[in-house]
Amino acid sequence: MSDAKEVGIVLVGCGTVGSAVAACLTGQQRHLEQRTGRRLTLRAIVDVDFARARQAGLDEKLFSRDLEGSLARQDASVVVELVGGTTFAKTVVEKALQAGKSVVTANKALLAHHGPELWELARRQGVCIAFEASCAGAIPIIAALTGELACDQVEAIYGIVNGTCNYILTAMTGQDRSYAQALAEAQSRGLAEADPTLDVSGTDSAHKLAIMAGLAFGARIDLAKIYVEGIDRLQQQDIRYGRELGYVVKLLAIARRQEDGLSLRVHPAFISAEHPLAWVSGPFNAVSVYAARSGHTMYYGRGAGGEPTSAAVIGDIAAVALGNAGRSFESLGIWPDRQAKADLLDVSAVRCRYYLRVQVADHPGVLAQIAQLLGRRGISITSVLQHESGNGQVEGVPVVITTHRAVEGDVRSALEEVNRLEAMKAPAVCIRMVDEHPERLA
Amino acid sequence: MSDAKEVGIVLVGCGTVGSAVAACLTGQQRHLEQRTGRRLTLRAIVDVDFARARQAGLDEKLFSRDLEGSLARQDASVVVELVGGTTFAKTVVEKALQAGKSVVTANKALLAHHGPELWELARRQGVCIAFEASCAGAIPIIAALTGELACDQVEAIYGIVNGTCNYILTAMTGQDRSYAQALAEAQSRGLAEADPTLDVSGTDSAHKLAIMAGLAFGARIDLAKIYVEGIDRLQQQDIRYGRELGYVVKLLAIARRQEDGLSLRVHPAFISAEHPLAWVSGPFNAVSVYAARSGHTMYYGRGAGGEPTSAAVIGDIAAVALGNAGRSFESLGIWPDRQAKADLLDVSAVRCRYYLRVQVADHPGVLAQIAQLLGRRGISITSVLQHESGNGQVEGVPVVITTHRAVEGDVRSALEEVNRLEAMKAPAVCIRMVDEHPERLA
Repeated sequence: MSDAKEVGIVLVGCGTVGSAVAACLTGQQRHLEQRTGRRLTLRAIVDVDFARARQAGLDEKLFSRDLEGSLARQDASVVVELVGGTTFAKTVVEKALQAGKSVVTANKALLAHHGPELWELARRQGVCIAFEASCAGAIPIIAALTGELACDQVEAIYGIVNGTCNYILTAMTGQDRSYAQALAEAQSRGLAEADPTLDVSGTDSAHKLAIMAGLAFGARIDLAKIYVEGIDRLQQQDIRYGRELGYVVKLLAIARRQEDGLSLRVHPAFISAEHPLAWVSGPFNAVSVYAARSGHTMYYGRGAGGEPTSAAVIGDIAAVALGNAGRSFESLGIWPDRQAKADLLDVSAVRCRYYLRVQVADHPGVLAQIAQLLGRRGISITSVLQHESGNGQVEGVPVVITTHRAVEGDVRSALEEVNRLEAMKAPAVCIRMVDEHPERLA
Repeated sequence: MSDAKEVGIVLVGCGTVGSAVAACLTGQQRHLEQRTGRRLTLRAIVDVDFARARQAGLDEKLFSRDLEGSLARQDASVVVELVGGTTFAKTVVEKALQAGKSVVTANKALLAHHGPELWELARRQGVCIAFEASCAGAIPIIAALTGELACDQVEAIYGIVNGTCNYILTAMTGQDRSYAQALAEAQSRGLAEADPTLDVSGTDSAHKLAIMAGLAFGARIDLAKIYVEGIDRLQQQDIRYGRELGYVVKLLAIARRQEDGLSLRVHPAFISAEHPLAWVSGPFNAVSVYAARSGHTMYYGRGAGGEPTSAAVIGDIAAVALGNAGRSFESLGIWPDRQAKADLLDVSAVRCRYYLRVQVADHPGVLAQIAQLLGRRGISITSVLQHESGNGQVEGVPVVITTHRAVEGDVRSALEEVNRLEAMKAPAVCIRMVDEHPERLA
């Protein structure tokens, strides 16, 4: 028996991530003790279904269906919540905090919806919540935002934080797949749920964005005010035209300080093929942070999966056991009374470049009409590409227009007018181009 | 006056980084207090030359030439050493620790040479040393290695940790510059010293590798046993041939667990153009870490420069002020008595693929002779490219051979024999190809 301080842990929820966490805590206790100076001991695994736990060969003596009793254990000071969702998981976290336990969670939806009240409860109880695993799996982005970057001034965050979407977009870009084909492929490889809505709609990315932005900007984020647009309406031809122009499409979670306020949004965006985020392929995630002193830093890795997410959970358990998570938590100032609600800009105030595709009758003068409607709103054009209509199935010819930086509200108004033109064979397609923070190489 | 706990700081060395640190501590005290809950107060700036300090508009009342007196101040608990080098800097750090101050340092050479003894001294004094800024500037790689990754099992580290070298190699690769041209360019842009030896020889990268590997593998690293090869002998034609084969050359700092031991080395290496490290351009740095649970994570950003490095220093000051740096330091187990000396493999035991270029007389049968000499040592060939001799200035024709994974000692012996062949017009060029950890996308 070693003389290292023992820290007891109760795990609630033993699915993919939970069983990986339990396997690590039980199988690598000595290694963890060497690296942390603490004896991390799993006391109980609480769930209603132990199929995964059995599959992972975990000790059945640890299995328990008694949530209340497990949370009340005197020999445990840390509760790991890996239930998911925002209802039962909320109860688990609240009960754990009320019982005076610190909580480690991977639950982004819970924290995006109820973070401030849970943080407040933890503070009142003199314990903490550690949530590295809630954003981007194995990538230590929460540690970065609450560590070095907390003392810097974050200007913007651009995150690829949903592996399902990035896998689909990579397949659409690299293998010229349609959205439906790429989604089916992702599903068959276990990278997308049978009902992929939460991922492809951008909602999951918005949850992570709310958490990251709250830390980065020291402000309370109203989830409902984040503009969210998914990837499910992207068309192959736009991805192809974008590539011709030197751009790659990614689903970005963006938090950016504009001159007039804070803009938070999730949407597909064209980024330069030269930007490091453009190289993030398949199920990988990455978060680019631009800060006043650090400049551009990027954090890359696996954003999901049992093992990578368990690495973040284990790291958090160690940080709680060491007391570091508690001190960081204390210094974050993320409680409702210490933090103003962020004044989020409406999406109509976004300023960026735009990629527009119109499908128009092949008449002379149509392009001039469109340019005029854009020009009236102060939207100036950077390039025009007219492509031959490839297949004859579609009426009209596609014209791709890219603009200088413009205000989204103006672009929307102009497009309404454009869509009313007689020559338009289909509503204009509009994709934002994000290049506010190009890589500055020297 | 706020009621936040005040933490006094003495800064020793006010050059590029030091003046940026001092400007931040004095100019952003309120912001730092908001984010840390501590009032970080700069008490003194110790140096012999205050030109930079004056340039940065720092308060002259802080300037001091009295090192002893400043280190003895009762109102300071943190000393920031930004002197550089391993002689006077060592004295500063030792005196600070002896005076019971925690130390924040960016000095990789000092830690690579004397880390264990300084850590031991800090432990005896009940204080800590924080050194995020010593490796890769703004990139929080020390936080990653001592945080989440400390509980994981690191298998390998591949780092681009010298911005000067990466700038030169990017220019040689992207703009087809010669080494001399690229170096001159880097010097004129302030990205290389007048005497660039420390950087281009790989020595600076080896210092950082020693620090990172010590943390990642929990072992004491003997700097003298790291194999180091610089970039100054790389030729444009090899970079071009490599690109034809789909490879990009980078100066890599590698720490890798092989079946038979730990291999630590710094050398130019061809990596797949598809690997995220291949995309790291210009003065940027990045560190790829492969670990058992996290899988591949990569940390990217500016590896040098006043502002980016100051961000890491400020982050460390905050971590020391909060007490987190102390707890992490305690749990690291990096002291001589708790850590075995790493048993480092000789470079002859390295196993990787090899790029070979031979300049041979255009006779029949030469290639067969070379293949035979390689084959006798168990080195098998994956591809052969024979190029026409471009200019006629060079005797013979260049033949590029890539091999399957082989043992370095065998390759060296075989090349000695190859070099003795009559048909050889110049000694064979040999560049390692690193692909042990290809990106696994799904």
